[in-house]
Amino acid sequence: MKKINLGLLGFGTIGSGVLRVLRKKAALLENKLGLRISLKRVCEVNPVLVKKLRSKKVDVCNNADRILEDPQIDIVIELIGGIHPAKEYILKALRNKKHVVTANKALLAEEGEDIFKTAKENGVDVYFEASVGGGIPIIRSLREGLIANKIESIYGIINGTSNYILTRMSESGCDFKSALKEAQKRGYAEKNPHFDISGIDCAHKIAILARICFNQAVKFKDIYIEGINDIELSDLNYAQEFGFCIKLLAIAKKAKDGLQIRVHPCLVPKGHVLANVRSVYNAVFIKADLIGKALLQGEGAGQLPTASAVVGDVISISQKIGLESQMDFLKIKGSNLSKKILSMDQLNTRYYFRFTALDKPEVLSKISRILGKFKISIYSVIQKGRRQSQAVPIVMMTHEAREKDICKALAQINKLSFIKKKTVAIRVEGI
Amino acid sequence: MKKINLGLLGFGTIGSGVLRVLRKKAALLENKLGLRISLKRVCEVNPVLVKKLRSKKVDVCNNADRILEDPQIDIVIELIGGIHPAKEYILKALRNKKHVVTANKALLAEEGEDIFKTAKENGVDVYFEASVGGGIPIIRSLREGLIANKIESIYGIINGTSNYILTRMSESGCDFKSALKEAQKRGYAEKNPHFDISGIDCAHKIAILARICFNQAVKFKDIYIEGINDIELSDLNYAQEFGFCIKLLAIAKKAKDGLQIRVHPCLVPKGHVLANVRSVYNAVFIKADLIGKALLQGEGAGQLPTASAVVGDVISISQKIGLESQMDFLKIKGSNLSKKILSMDQLNTRYYFRFTALDKPEVLSKISRILGKFKISIYSVIQKGRRQSQAVPIVMMTHEAREKDICKALAQINKLSFIKKKTVAIRVEGI
Repeated sequence: MKKINLGLLGFGTIGSGVLRVLRKKAALLENKLGLRISLKRVCEVNPVLVKKLRSKKVDVCNNADRILEDPQIDIVIELIGGIHPAKEYILKALRNKKHVVTANKALLAEEGEDIFKTAKENGVDVYFEASVGGGIPIIRSLREGLIANKIESIYGIINGTSNYILTRMSESGCDFKSALKEAQKRGYAEKNPHFDISGIDCAHKIAILARICFNQAVKFKDIYIEGINDIELSDLNYAQEFGFCIKLLAIAKKAKDGLQIRVHPCLVPKGHVLANVRSVYNAVFIKADLIGKALLQGEGAGQLPTASAVVGDVISISQKIGLESQMDFLKIKGSNLSKKILSMDQLNTRYYFRFTALDKPEVLSKISRILGKFKISIYSVIQKGRRQSQAVPIVMMTHEAREKDICKALAQINKLSFIKKKTVAIRVEGI
Repeated sequence: MKKINLGLLGFGTIGSGVLRVLRKKAALLENKLGLRISLKRVCEVNPVLVKKLRSKKVDVCNNADRILEDPQIDIVIELIGGIHPAKEYILKALRNKKHVVTANKALLAEEGEDIFKTAKENGVDVYFEASVGGGIPIIRSLREGLIANKIESIYGIINGTSNYILTRMSESGCDFKSALKEAQKRGYAEKNPHFDISGIDCAHKIAILARICFNQAVKFKDIYIEGINDIELSDLNYAQEFGFCIKLLAIAKKAKDGLQIRVHPCLVPKGHVLANVRSVYNAVFIKADLIGKALLQGEGAGQLPTASAVVGDVISISQKIGLESQMDFLKIKGSNLSKKILSMDQLNTRYYFRFTALDKPEVLSKISRILGKFKISIYSVIQKGRRQSQAVPIVMMTHEAREKDICKALAQINKLSFIKKKTVAIRVEGI
C-alpha cells in the first residue's frame, strides 16, 4: 500500500484536531482510499504543546527545515497562521516540490500571488479549503463541482463572531456590547475581536473566494471593508419593521465594468435564505449561469469542522499522488452489507394524526383509550367547530412512540364506527 | 494538449444541455484545465433529434456499439434513463475500460451493485453527480470534501415536484389537485407525476446517497416509501398551528442496530433550515461527526443545473486521465488582472439611514432637500415619538441611488446643526 507522509507546521487547536482526525480515521481512510496517510513530523516550539506531542508519540522538531527539507515528506500542512514566517515556509515547501495544505486566509488573501505562482512553477498544488467556511466544502465546490459555471455573484456570511452578535442582538434585544461579551464567554469571539467585527476576516475570505470565482488575482487593498461596530439595536429593530434583517455580508459580484468586492453590513429581506443563517453558522450563496442559485451552509469554524477540511484536502492530494489507487476510490463493499436496514416498525418518533370522526361525545375518550393501550401519549389536541352527527376533524400531536404501536393503534381506531375516513398520520421528524 | 473524447448516449433535454455547455465553455475549460474535451459521437434514434444533431454538425449513430466499442472514446455519458438498455450499455462501456458519467438514478438505486462492481473490476470509475440534486454538488461533497467524516444522518428535500406542490398548498391555500395542475402547467411536474409524488423518485435518490454516506449497498426494496398523495390542505394548516410545516423528506440515518432509510411526509419545525426550502428547490441537510450540521441547497433539476453536474463529472475524470495537466489545475492568471475591481463610488443600491436629529419642524424638509439635490429619492420614513428639542431617530429607506451621491449627501447632512450624531447608513442588498 502506498504511503503518503505529512509534515505539520503548528500544533495549535486546528493542528491537534488534525492529528486526532488522522489517527481516529486511519483505518477508515486506508479502506476507502487504498493509501496509508501518516503524520511523520510536527514542528512546534511551545513547550506545553511539545510535551503534549511527545506524550502522543509524535516526532517533534523545532526547526521547520526538518519538515521542509525532508525528501520523504509529500505534503506540508501549514497551521501557524499570520504572514511571517508562514509565507517563507510555504514557499520553501513548494520549491522542494511538496504540496501544501493551509488554513491561512490572511496569507492567501494578502500574498496569494507569490504562493500560487510558486506552486505552478514547481508543478505542485496548494489546497486551502479550511481557509473559508470551516467544514463547508465551498472551495472544492467552486473549483470542481461548479467548474463549468460562470459565477455571477457570491454572497457570504463568513464570520461566525459577527453573525452571532447580530443574531443575539436581534433575537434577544441586547446591545452590541453585551452580545459581544456573550460571544466571548461562549468562545465565539476572541479577547481582541477586532479582526472579526471590523470585517477584515471576511475581507480575507472574500478575496480568496473572488480569486476562484473569477479566476484572477485580487489585490487586498482594493476591497471595501466595513464592520458591524456601528450597528445599534435600534437599527435591527427598524430594519425589522421594513421587513429586513441585518447581516454582515462579504460580496463578490460581476458588474458591467468590473468586479465589486466588498464587505459591509447589509439589509437582507427576511424571506431570503441568508436571513435564516443564524448564530455562528456560515453560509455562501452563489448565483451562476448554469446552476442558478445555490446555498452552502454549515459551521464555519471550530476545531473539528476545520480539521475536516484540512484532512479532506490532504486526501485529495494523496489521491493525486497515488493515482493507481485512485481509481479504486469508489470502494463500495458490494457483497457484505455491514449494517442492516431497519424496518419501519422500530422507528421512534412523534406523530401528527388527523381523525375524521362523527361529532359524538365519546369520540375522544375512545380514541385516547386505544392510544393509551399502546403506550402512545397525547401531547396536544385541536378540535374545532361542532357539527352534530357530521364528520369533523380531530387533530392530535403525540409524544414519541413506536411506529409498530402506532400502526396497531390506528388499525383499531380506523375500525371504530364513528371514524368516517382512514386516519391521516404524519411523522414529526426530530432533525 | 491532451484530448479527451466523449461519447453521449441519448440526446434528450439533458443531453442537449450537455452539448450546449461543452461547446459554449470549450475555451474556458481548455484554459482552466489544459485539456481539450471534445464530444466525438452521439447515439440517438429519434429522427427529430438526429436531425437537430446533424444541423449542429455532430457525428450521430443509431447503434450504441459505435460508441461503446470505439477505442478513441475515453468517457461515455449515459443519459437514456430507465433500466434497460442503459444498464447493458454502461456495463459494456466499463468492460471496455471506459469511464462512465450518468444521471440515471433509477438504475443506480436498483442495479447499482452490478455497475460499481464492474467498474472496480475494470479499473475505471462511475460518476453520477447529476443523479441527485441537479446542480448541487452533493455527491462530490460527500465523497471528497467530507470524506474524513462519519455521516450520522442525511435529510433530503430531493423531489422538486413534491416540494413545489406542498409549498403552493401552504402558501396559497389551494388543494393538492390544483397545486399539481399548476406544477404541470409550469413544467415542474410531468403529465404522469406518479414517480414524483409517490416518493419513488426520492427513494431512488436516497438509496444513492445512503450508499455513499454509509459506504455500503442498499437494497431498494428495503426502503420505506410514502408519497404526498394523502396530504390535504387542512393538514398543512393544522401543522402550521403547531408550529410546523410539512415536507416530503428522504432520510438515511444511523440508528442503534442499523440504518433507517425512508421517504415520507414529515412535520418539520418552522424555524429549521429545511422548512425554508421552498418551491422547486432541493436541499440536503447533513449531520456528521466532524463538521456538525451542514446544508446544501439549490435547483435540483432542469436542463442547465443537471448539465452542469454532468460536465463537472466529465472534467473530474478528464483530470484523472490527463494527470500531468492536473497539477496545473489552479491556473490563476497571476499577472494580468482581467477585470478591474470597482470602486464603491459606482455601487448602485438602496439604503437605510438612521439620522439622529433634534426634534424640530424643519428637519425632514432640510434632509430631503439635500437628498433630492443628489437625486436620492425616499421610499419610506419612520419617525416615532416626539421629544421637543431633544435628539430623536429618523429612519429612512431610499430607492436605488449611487454610493458616490450618498456619500456626498450624507457629508452635507451630517454638517446640519440639528444633526446630533453621525448618520448610520446601511446598504440594502438586492440578492
